[in-house]
Amino acid sequence: MKKLQIGNTEFSSRLFLGTGKFGSLSQMREAVQASESELVTMALKRVDFDSPTDELLAELKKTKANLLPNTSGARNAKEAVLAAELAREALETNFVKLEIHPDPRYLLPDPIETLKATEELAKLSFVVMPYIHADPVLCKLLENAGTSVVMPLGAPIGTNKGLRTIDFLEIIIEQSKVPVVVDAGIGAPSDAAKAMELGADAVLVNTAIAVAKNPVEMAIAFKEAVIAGRRAFESGLGAIQNRAEASSPLTAFLLDD
Amino acid sequence: MKKLQIGNTEFSSRLFLGTGKFGSLSQMREAVQASESELVTMALKRVDFDSPTDELLAELKKTKANLLPNTSGARNAKEAVLAAELAREALETNFVKLEIHPDPRYLLPDPIETLKATEELAKLSFVVMPYIHADPVLCKLLENAGTSVVMPLGAPIGTNKGLRTIDFLEIIIEQSKVPVVVDAGIGAPSDAAKAMELGADAVLVNTAIAVAKNPVEMAIAFKEAVIAGRRAFESGLGAIQNRAEASSPLTAFLLDD
Amino acid sequence: MKKLQIGNTEFSSRLFLGTGKFGSLSQMREAVQASESELVTMALKRVDFDSPTDELLAELKKTKANLLPNTSGARNAKEAVLAAELAREALETNFVKLEIHPDPRYLLPDPIETLKATEELAKLSFVVMPYIHADPVLCKLLENAGTSVVMPLGAPIGTNKGLRTIDFLEIIIEQSKVPVVVDAGIGAPSDAAKAMELGADAVLVNTAIAVAKNPVEMAIAFKEAVIAGRRAFESGLGAIQNRAEASSPLTAFLLDD
Amino acid sequence: MKKLQIGNTEFSSRLFLGTGKFGSLSQMREAVQASESELVTMALKRVDFDSPTDELLAELKKTKANLLPNTSGARNAKEAVLAAELAREALETNFVKLEIHPDPRYLLPDPIETLKATEELAKLSFVVMPYIHADPVLCKLLENAGTSVVMPLGAPIGTNKGLRTIDFLEIIIEQSKVPVVVDAGIGAPSDAAKAMELGADAVLVNTAIAVAKNPVEMAIAFKEAVIAGRRAFESGLGAIQNRAEASSPLTAFLLDD
Repeated sequence: MKKLQIGNTEFSSRLFLGTGKFGSLSQMREAVQASESELVTMALKRVDFDSPTDELLAELKKTKANLLPNTSGARNAKEAVLAAELAREALETNFVKLEIHPDPRYLLPDPIETLKATEELAKLSFVVMPYIHADPVLCKLLENAGTSVVMPLGAPIGTNKGLRTIDFLEIIIEQSKVPVVVDAGIGAPSDAAKAMELGADAVLVNTAIAVAKNPVEMAIAFKEAVIAGRRAFESGLGAIQNRAEASSPLTAFLLDD
Repeated sequence: MKKLQIGNTEFSSRLFLGTGKFGSLSQMREAVQASESELVTMALKRVDFDSPTDELLAELKKTKANLLPNTSGARNAKEAVLAAELAREALETNFVKLEIHPDPRYLLPDPIETLKATEELAKLSFVVMPYIHADPVLCKLLENAGTSVVMPLGAPIGTNKGLRTIDFLEIIIEQSKVPVVVDAGIGAPSDAAKAMELGADAVLVNTAIAVAKNPVEMAIAFKEAVIAGRRAFESGLGAIQNRAEASSPLTAFLLDD
Repeated sequence: MKKLQIGNTEFSSRLFLGTGKFGSLSQMREAVQASESELVTMALKRVDFDSPTDELLAELKKTKANLLPNTSGARNAKEAVLAAELAREALETNFVKLEIHPDPRYLLPDPIETLKATEELAKLSFVVMPYIHADPVLCKLLENAGTSVVMPLGAPIGTNKGLRTIDFLEIIIEQSKVPVVVDAGIGAPSDAAKAMELGADAVLVNTAIAVAKNPVEMAIAFKEAVIAGRRAFESGLGAIQNRAEASSPLTAFLLDD
Repeated sequence: MKKLQIGNTEFSSRLFLGTGKFGSLSQMREAVQASESELVTMALKRVDFDSPTDELLAELKKTKANLLPNTSGARNAKEAVLAAELAREALETNFVKLEIHPDPRYLLPDPIETLKATEELAKLSFVVMPYIHADPVLCKLLENAGTSVVMPLGAPIGTNKGLRTIDFLEIIIEQSKVPVVVDAGIGAPSDAAKAMELGADAVLVNTAIAVAKNPVEMAIAFKEAVIAGRRAFESGLGAIQNRAEASSPLTAFLLDD
């Protein structure tokens, strides 16, 4: 399957993982390893930069995954840019997942501040990965502002509702010149497969894995589903028909002759 | 993953394949092999029982898959039973996929004749696998009549519309004492994964693979998706929520301290 | 709007009502009157045939609606036929809503016994109105057996889930020579309107009205929605498009000149 | 039913109409009259301000509807503000429907320029009615900027796809302090009823009426559906259940006694 390139980094896996909500750090690390994900997000709040032995970081370093610090908790562009700069210094990566959500209830992203922060961070040579509503016009504006990917949501974050924005994801994918990563709402491997079948370049999953009864096995299921969905996309899915065409010959029955 | 048992046969793969609509017999055979399916349906009409060198059969024998003759074209129980008996004799299998569809336009199954044929075939020691509407009451009647599995449809056959009967599949799966195999309508690997996540025991796919641009790769994608969906089912999917719960801590921003 | 004929009776209203679950009999009667429904179902169990002052009947006689006794509770054709005959004698109507549901949990209908009872009741000159799964083949079998209408379900009864069987209702409506009445599952006026837009001839509603905060006002809302949906059907809805065509001219902006 | 207030104007009708795509101006006027709409949008481009006998305006003045000039064709805030000012002068209304869509293919709105224009127009004492994506955070930003309503889309404009943004409309309606008018995508009266049942304050419809076989009758159907949906909202819809509760007594059959 085609590899995915973001910034200068090439990815074999099209499954990105979040690291919140797991029962323990070791369970989280095992799930990341089982998923074969090469990019995992982490909230800056959860890292103690001053401590060389921060446990979350220590666990993540045992995996093959690149770190994708997110700016979760930032309420505006200024806070987000500052957070990104701290992260770059501390974690030695210029990847940043931009999350600006002033709304504490549904954690939905702010289009205005996200665009503003993207412009600034792109100028500062970050590889910007903004979490946004599935808004096709905003995606083009972010592209023009120098974003490296767009990360439209499938459904409100943490709901496991799946792809409630398909009509808009299709337009975004059709129009985008940067990779499209579906973020938020993906609740089951079938949702991840569906996103890939639509032509998304990758998906980001957290809650659905972390809250599963068996998160490590669920991580494997998502890995398989993402591969399946991507393979289906590359293999050319047939069109949906309104009328059946029999797959078995039906014009006559064998006893008719 | 748990193996599936139907009659006395044990299956590692939960993906069953149809053999119609492929571009060539060798392509069909390659797709079956790539899918690792262990059960493939074939229409009796397409087999020339008298010819020892029938090409379809010859191709299928190169695979590991068991044969599942179907009664496609039968318009009533009598025709279906006769077809099943011919198939058992010619192909040396007591498996039969019961398809009775008087309707040439949508190929939808006849509940009355299907129940009648199931009763007769079960008495004749067939392993009966009836293709039916996603009708929970009919499923229980078939179970009482001795069916070995039930095969409710996801959508009208050949449409690639996916799972349009979810509300009823859920009830069928909840109530069934025999394996539930979702048949017809599955149009993409994500649909197959979804069926497995609901708790279906297997899926049967034909059109979606046969009409893909690359049927062999699509067969692999379905194989992966079925495994992913089953694994997710066994790993305990989380519930759908109406409100987000952040996967990253959000009560305070890192700069607040 | 075109009137609806069932048996020899002509209906101006395409909204049929159930009478269960209301807070009181007078509230039920007021809702029926407000809905302007001309056909209301009643469970035989709830009527005391021997008492000339049965309260339910007394309330219903204050409305303009015809009575449609249902066989709710019947577990097979024999019980249903007996119930129909008792109802005809007591209520002096040959209308009967056939409900045969052996399943006490989801109250889903039995296709086999329903067909059998329809055959018998048609021979006994009943106007048979069978509640069934949205199974297009069964609908044709019932038509051949002499049913006066078919009443496919939209969703499991009492769930308010709306039209979960659209793909099959469309086929039923396309093929049917008798009126199609969508029964069960309709949870809101928009569902009723949608059923009518698809071309259904009428809808039957009970739970959604009876459990509303204000059942009388909700009955009016359903009346309006059914009229709206029927009017839309008769007025020719436009097709769904995948791409916008502007309703305002967009090739140039007014300031361009 | 509760009246709707926007700016200082009170509306009995919660159905707003667009005036594009009709077969003729007189047909458009008849549809507006039949709909009893009190607010109709018109593209500035289509009006010849210099001509006192402009035909579109002349037709609209025969109706009871207030004019809602839209800025269709504006590619940014500057163009939109200029258009609004021209419209106010020419048409003597301070209502303006803000449409800024740089994208000529799907006509989707630009969140950034729309917010900017809203801020400016609100300062200039316009009653601003911005057409936007169903983005809950953007809605709050517009509210803070002084918008009079928010007009989130149901689906891409002109597609008749209906409400594809329900999950987000629900959040918008829950959070909004200004009226919520669902604009774009509404393809059938059932869609309009559904929007009203969710708690939307009004809907704007154009394509679905204009392209109907009988636009005048379709306008009436929408009028009825909007009333039905609003009435249902005010009457308290029951919850969706996963399991049936019989509306008829089922514990025993009448013959059991």
